[in-house]
Amino acid sequence: MNKISQDDRAPGADFRSQARELVANRETLRRIFIMREDDSARETLVKYMEQILFGLQDFLQRHVGITEEVPLKELSERFMDTTIGRHPEKKLAQVITDLINGIAPYAVNVASPYFVGHMTSAIPFFMVHLSTIVAALNQNVVKIETSKVVSIVEKQVLAKIHRLIYGFPEDFYKEHIQSGYTSLGGFVEDGTLANLSALWVARNRLLGPKEGFAGVEQEGIARAFAAHGVDRLVVLISQLGHYSLRKSAGVLGLGSDNVLAIGVDEHNRMDIGELTSTLGHLAKTEPRTRVLAVVGISGATETGTVDPLGKIADICQEQGIHFHVDAAWGGPTLFSEKYARLLSGIERADSVTIDGHKQFYMPMTCGMVYFKDPEAMDAIAYNARYVARPGSVDLGIRSLAGSRPSTSLILDSALKIMGAQGYALLIEHGIETAASLAEEIELRENFQLMTRPELNILTYRYCPPEIQKHLATAGPEEALVINQALNEANIALQRRQREAGKSFVSRTTLRFPDGRNGLTVVLRVVIMNPMTHMGILREILDEQESIAARQLPESFRIEP
Amino acid sequence: MNKISQDDRAPGADFRSQARELVANRETLRRIFIMREDDSARETLVKYMEQILFGLQDFLQRHVGITEEVPLKELSERFMDTTIGRHPEKKLAQVITDLINGIAPYAVNVASPYFVGHMTSAIPFFMVHLSTIVAALNQNVVKIETSKVVSIVEKQVLAKIHRLIYGFPEDFYKEHIQSGYTSLGGFVEDGTLANLSALWVARNRLLGPKEGFAGVEQEGIARAFAAHGVDRLVVLISQLGHYSLRKSAGVLGLGSDNVLAIGVDEHNRMDIGELTSTLGHLAKTEPRTRVLAVVGISGATETGTVDPLGKIADICQEQGIHFHVDAAWGGPTLFSEKYARLLSGIERADSVTIDGHKQFYMPMTCGMVYFKDPEAMDAIAYNARYVARPGSVDLGIRSLAGSRPSTSLILDSALKIMGAQGYALLIEHGIETAASLAEEIELRENFQLMTRPELNILTYRYCPPEIQKHLATAGPEEALVINQALNEANIALQRRQREAGKSFVSRTTLRFPDGRNGLTVVLRVVIMNPMTHMGILREILDEQESIAARQLPESFRIEP
Repeated sequence: MNKISQDDRAPGADFRSQARELVANRETLRRIFIMREDDSARETLVKYMEQILFGLQDFLQRHVGITEEVPLKELSERFMDTTIGRHPEKKLAQVITDLINGIAPYAVNVASPYFVGHMTSAIPFFMVHLSTIVAALNQNVVKIETSKVVSIVEKQVLAKIHRLIYGFPEDFYKEHIQSGYTSLGGFVEDGTLANLSALWVARNRLLGPKEGFAGVEQEGIARAFAAHGVDRLVVLISQLGHYSLRKSAGVLGLGSDNVLAIGVDEHNRMDIGELTSTLGHLAKTEPRTRVLAVVGISGATETGTVDPLGKIADICQEQGIHFHVDAAWGGPTLFSEKYARLLSGIERADSVTIDGHKQFYMPMTCGMVYFKDPEAMDAIAYNARYVARPGSVDLGIRSLAGSRPSTSLILDSALKIMGAQGYALLIEHGIETAASLAEEIELRENFQLMTRPELNILTYRYCPPEIQKHLATAGPEEALVINQALNEANIALQRRQREAGKSFVSRTTLRFPDGRNGLTVVLRVVIMNPMTHMGILREILDEQESIAARQLPESFRIEP
Repeated sequence: MNKISQDDRAPGADFRSQARELVANRETLRRIFIMREDDSARETLVKYMEQILFGLQDFLQRHVGITEEVPLKELSERFMDTTIGRHPEKKLAQVITDLINGIAPYAVNVASPYFVGHMTSAIPFFMVHLSTIVAALNQNVVKIETSKVVSIVEKQVLAKIHRLIYGFPEDFYKEHIQSGYTSLGGFVEDGTLANLSALWVARNRLLGPKEGFAGVEQEGIARAFAAHGVDRLVVLISQLGHYSLRKSAGVLGLGSDNVLAIGVDEHNRMDIGELTSTLGHLAKTEPRTRVLAVVGISGATETGTVDPLGKIADICQEQGIHFHVDAAWGGPTLFSEKYARLLSGIERADSVTIDGHKQFYMPMTCGMVYFKDPEAMDAIAYNARYVARPGSVDLGIRSLAGSRPSTSLILDSALKIMGAQGYALLIEHGIETAASLAEEIELRENFQLMTRPELNILTYRYCPPEIQKHLATAGPEEALVINQALNEANIALQRRQREAGKSFVSRTTLRFPDGRNGLTVVLRVVIMNPMTHMGILREILDEQESIAARQLPESFRIEP
């Protein structure tokens, strides 16, 4: 049965017909599901893995730059086929070869030390080994019955990071670490879903059950507002807040417009005066508006800056408002004895977001959310008849997703391999290299440092000295015109450097407190890769100066 | 610098002090981030991978059963430490050894052909190789700048599965496959988030912008209800609907209580008469209630049954209601020419959920959601200044999560390696083995088949012939008592079999149409692993008969 007839074969399909045998019958299916024990089968397994490891190693070594110079449009045209062949198209060896030779060179070499534009970088190679183990074990931590000890390890590692953030006494952790009735936090897909989970919990606690009302989760927002005498819930965050907060408010039915932006001070930290006055104004003018949460940022995506968490905590505590900290980026700074103080106040947060795939250097992706109150997540508990029985360690009970991989095994292992100090060294390298880069930018007359690094992110722009002079004395209207020209020039500069494929710096648009220049395009550097050193950063600046001089001279000739 | 003083060392810490050198200074950090090119470094890489592959292979071969016999409570006590050591605790080799010897034996061997209780099974081993590649490339598909061609491949594979479901003409796919302005679907963490995404889109389309109103996403549900003259949105699904639908309605601010359960017919399919009458009743009695969506199930979690999708499509089309199909489990049945007809009508769904980690046999986890209308996902679009620019192929624009792994590479490769027929064989094995098991259960007098398999899931219970006879003639009150005793006996039976560690069948609780017996505990078998054959299933039934005879005789001695 399942024999392939001759006319079924594509022309020149010797390879294909060979591949077909892999799954054309049940015997070949057996082969891919069972790892046989004989030596030749073992050799095959390792042979594939060698092909992967060395193939990608060669790629990572060879392509120092970011990507091959093939335009996206041209690439798209190669991936237009939508048919799924009846028979297998390729054997594993061929698929691996194609991925290494046909995909990897046109992917982005985020591991390059010249890739300093985003919060993605090289990861220690042991992370790849750990991912392999997670995939091979294929546990589903939605329930004990498909994970057993792995759910227990997950609860343990959640407690470890909870302790890093909150530092509660030993007894607290003894009580909660393995309890089926409480949760110190949870793993989610990424920071967006961590922020969403935090606001979900906050929403359900604020609009909880009361006489004649089962709670917002059960009855929905419209009835909850009626039951609680509320017309609107707002979330306050600085203007540098991540867009995932708006998205979360949108998903949760609160409305993304109800995430209100508070201005920042000259250090890009939330302006506490404005926070206080906004809260006062809302209380006075909108008695039926409630504040769902104030969010403090610990490592803003665009500037890397940290809000005054202690002061926000004071205000939230006084007014009984949920205090969430988005530490997706900055959280692991807590490992550094030298710089942990920058996050001071985080231990007072009701909830905290941290991403594993950012400064824990884990592979894509791992989001986490932590709660000070181990009962907070009860507000989002769900049970089903066949899984997630109450009081069990079924992690699916208090979780946005259902099925989830055992990513926690990677984090737990990484903590053991790196130790706090290993992470501290990475964090310190980032912060100190960013500080050196800021100095270097200030020394170069063609650049302006736009935001000073507090952690390991800074922004700057190309702005030749004659234009800087010009701008300093220009009237507001003229300044706006000059700034617009600078914006366009910096956009072109960033694009050309990216397209050249040697290095990558990102760009974003900021609004500066003085406001006179409107929206300002800035170049953005994130120092995360420990292999990125000042020599490389100088090369990147040199390249920008050279692109500006050779290719963009017109852009910088702004007539008064 | 960073030298470790003698007194820093724990007693007997020879191994630890050796490990410390791995990250105690920047030089050792370099070593874990950069793969050196010399032969010894290559050998090390492979050595670790061999340790993983063969270690786990031995484990998978040796432990035919589900898990070691160590109670959860005892296991928990081993994972109580919440400190993160300052220095590294272990080297990679030691961590791998610990995972293989200390974790794997106490995890659940979901790959065992005796593990037939959940929607988790063995996966082809090439999936592990593919996961390794995804981890090593570490692309983030939130944006082109951190993924490039990988985002293009993701769009392609979404189009392939969209075509499998909807079968639109070639031109349709030519237009949309690589368009930055439309989306055929998206990858999410799992089926729960796929269902959530589908309802999120439906909600935003139903309560979209209109004169003086920016839309529910921007302004929230309370204002949306006011603007659209709505008091309540409901979702209709059969009583066998997955709890993720209730959770989704809860998260989205609609209220989990507003997911209304429609009864099922004697084949466990949505009762179309009841659907129609419920819709009619709502329209008549609650003019300000709107139906957000009707959900058809394609492979119910508990019974594997498929709702009459075509009939539901007729009703939804007529009444202009969003028709969602939860095919998290059953979707890949479309690969089988023999059984695809069971899903007939799915091509008329406005949105479809499919899980990759279920019957695509991918590693944990991969959820997907598809939309018939390529502009549907515009209703959930978000942009940020530094990523996700409109019109780009930045996949983060229309997506619940932000950062996401390139799981699509695994699916795309698997489709090439397996071909449609490879998947068809797996599906057919499941369906046909479940049918044979049903026959076997009906032959054995100690068992009752409770739900007949339509796909590859069935339920049954242990119920000795004398009790069956008793039950047949008992009055309603007595039947309830007998049923309660049977429930308890079947709970004990399932637990004892699980604890014995050789095989695993799950249990759940069903409410049968005749209703006279109240909630009924049933044993549940899911045939997914192609290595599970009738011989194994007979052994599992034998074991249950033996447990019942030896350990539970009292439970089955029910006096009239």
